[in-house]
Amino acid sequence: MSGNAGPEQHVSSDRFADDPAFAVHEGGKLSVAAIRSIASIADLALTYTPGVARVSSAIAAEPELARRFTWAPRVVAVVSDGTAVLGLGNIGPAAALPVMEGKACLFSEFAGLSSVPIVLSTTDVDAIVETVAAIAPSFGGINLEDISAPRCFEIEARLRDRLDIPVMHDDQHGTAIVVLAALRNAAKVVGRELSDLRVVVAGAGAAGVACTKILLEAGVGDIAVADSQGILHPGREALTGTKQWLVDHTNEAGFAGSMVGALEGADVYVGVSGGTVPEAAIASMAENCIVFSLANPIPEVDPEMAAKYAAVVATGRSDLPNQINNVLAFPGVFRGAIDAGATGITEEMKLAAATAIADVVGEDLRPDYIVPSPLDRRVATAVATAVAACAREQGITR
Amino acid sequence: MSGNAGPEQHVSSDRFADDPAFAVHEGGKLSVAAIRSIASIADLALTYTPGVARVSSAIAAEPELARRFTWAPRVVAVVSDGTAVLGLGNIGPAAALPVMEGKACLFSEFAGLSSVPIVLSTTDVDAIVETVAAIAPSFGGINLEDISAPRCFEIEARLRDRLDIPVMHDDQHGTAIVVLAALRNAAKVVGRELSDLRVVVAGAGAAGVACTKILLEAGVGDIAVADSQGILHPGREALTGTKQWLVDHTNEAGFAGSMVGALEGADVYVGVSGGTVPEAAIASMAENCIVFSLANPIPEVDPEMAAKYAAVVATGRSDLPNQINNVLAFPGVFRGAIDAGATGITEEMKLAAATAIADVVGEDLRPDYIVPSPLDRRVATAVATAVAACAREQGITR
Repeated sequence: MSGNAGPEQHVSSDRFADDPAFAVHEGGKLSVAAIRSIASIADLALTYTPGVARVSSAIAAEPELARRFTWAPRVVAVVSDGTAVLGLGNIGPAAALPVMEGKACLFSEFAGLSSVPIVLSTTDVDAIVETVAAIAPSFGGINLEDISAPRCFEIEARLRDRLDIPVMHDDQHGTAIVVLAALRNAAKVVGRELSDLRVVVAGAGAAGVACTKILLEAGVGDIAVADSQGILHPGREALTGTKQWLVDHTNEAGFAGSMVGALEGADVYVGVSGGTVPEAAIASMAENCIVFSLANPIPEVDPEMAAKYAAVVATGRSDLPNQINNVLAFPGVFRGAIDAGATGITEEMKLAAATAIADVVGEDLRPDYIVPSPLDRRVATAVATAVAACAREQGITR
Repeated sequence: MSGNAGPEQHVSSDRFADDPAFAVHEGGKLSVAAIRSIASIADLALTYTPGVARVSSAIAAEPELARRFTWAPRVVAVVSDGTAVLGLGNIGPAAALPVMEGKACLFSEFAGLSSVPIVLSTTDVDAIVETVAAIAPSFGGINLEDISAPRCFEIEARLRDRLDIPVMHDDQHGTAIVVLAALRNAAKVVGRELSDLRVVVAGAGAAGVACTKILLEAGVGDIAVADSQGILHPGREALTGTKQWLVDHTNEAGFAGSMVGALEGADVYVGVSGGTVPEAAIASMAENCIVFSLANPIPEVDPEMAAKYAAVVATGRSDLPNQINNVLAFPGVFRGAIDAGATGITEEMKLAAATAIADVVGEDLRPDYIVPSPLDRRVATAVATAVAACAREQGITR
């Protein structure tokens, strides 16, 4: 009964036997264990009563001691309401849980951080904010995950305001950080400056909005953003607050029609929308263009087709080169913020993370190697170091 | 950076160096880790995207599959608002966390269950119920802990109604189960039947109420319950709902004054109140009486003094014989309920747990060995087996 065993193994001759993904998930993917063994009455008296009472009393008198004598500062909650899970949409908390367990595995594996999946039985914005705020003293960081837009923007903003620990919606910022890292290196490959690039972002959901913001912060020249109704421009009506912000801050070139129109002569396509882009539109892009087509498992732009026109092609797929995978970002971002005792994650920290990821590629840069492998152990360390240094420079550490 | 390491060790020449309890708590006591390693792109593609999407889709189509392919069914949340922590009172969530981490260590160590401490920034009953209900899809059981009375009664009752997973307030029922186990064996030592015993319970908080209820269910003859104002009787006014229930169901003998009056001629004293009982009161109890004095670290009745008058003495202290420690109950109770797929924890399951604990002592029964050692590995297994069997008999399993 010991050893944190999962439930009894099911016979393998069942309907899930043909897919190894189910075998990997049998009984779940995580385990919580005591760091120190409880082998004697003396151990019990230190780990639990009466010894623990002295530690609790000390923290009650001096709350900052919780950072030293509890696990909370190094535990990240991976929180989802299951409304926008991968490409599957609103599948609810139970079905979202394997994804959140997967994130927790990656936090452990790449950043040495404990993390706990928290899936919610509510999709109400107020209720989510109140719930996360209520459980926050248990954790050192909050990774929001797979929450649908535009709710994700408000939930993240309110929790960032309310809590003094790092809060980040990974579908926004994890993706944005890696896209910026990839674009920094892709621009080097084609000998261009970011400020010189005209970009089309296809998708105005969580990832599209955050990619657009970080690219603007990094100094990208002009960006046109398209949602399902076409390019966001001042003539569009009844927009959400986030989309209105995009109207006010993008599209200097003044595109007003479909995304295909904006692609003509564009330097960069960033697809975070799903759907399909016709070959003619990619063919109309500028010479030496850059195509990041991140829908998974089916990229918006067929990668083989894109390679006919683009100097650099990246996707979200693990079986192709240049995989833009947010596992390159989130473990190191949280590790760095936590190591520094940061009270939040700033835009500057995200920019520092992107530069750190790009720099791991270094001298090995080539068109089919603009981002490190998701398994490259150097990445999380480099990102954590850069993020922690940035937090300290900004003076937002404890 | 790997290995789920805690923060950097502090130099040992600090003000906490003299107390080994602080060394045990440095960096916290728990770690979450991935069960399976992620060493290759293929591993990543099964544990995380794209493989995880197939598992999530299957659960979305058939929610019961979450019991097989997520960790939730074998994870217990240890939830506290920090209002009644050990003997320390309302010390808040951060200071309560070491105790909750300790419980989680014990769940792992004794029952092979993962568990996660959740400490709350709210003490509002409605907010606690809503928060726990919101996070419940993440867990297979809810262990409420160190929540002050009478709020704990309402919170537990509402969550039991609302959730279809085991919910138990351990300060009530964990303690009650072990007290009943101890009293079964103490009665054997003195050759008495439970139905034949007159009991005085000192304390009408979480533990006192639950002890009284389980002793009544087990058939104890008569019980008088005392709070700080004396014995609960029909003349008492402005009582909480729980205390009124006690008035209606206890004290057949009709005591109306102080606890000391009721102790005269009583067979059993159960102290879960703190404070001090004068020697004359213990001396006035019946011949071969039984004294359980559970306040920690200072028992209400001095154990050496009690031994002058009582045939059996038990305390909550680890350095004395007959330690009544709820670690004998909660790991096995949750393990049994979870193994059986029980939708709750019934009174019958608690009674079965108490009998199982008492039975582990078996032939070795003697006045200074009425309950097993908290480290006795047989206990959790015996309790889990009995609790699971009871749940199956009652037909409350999935």
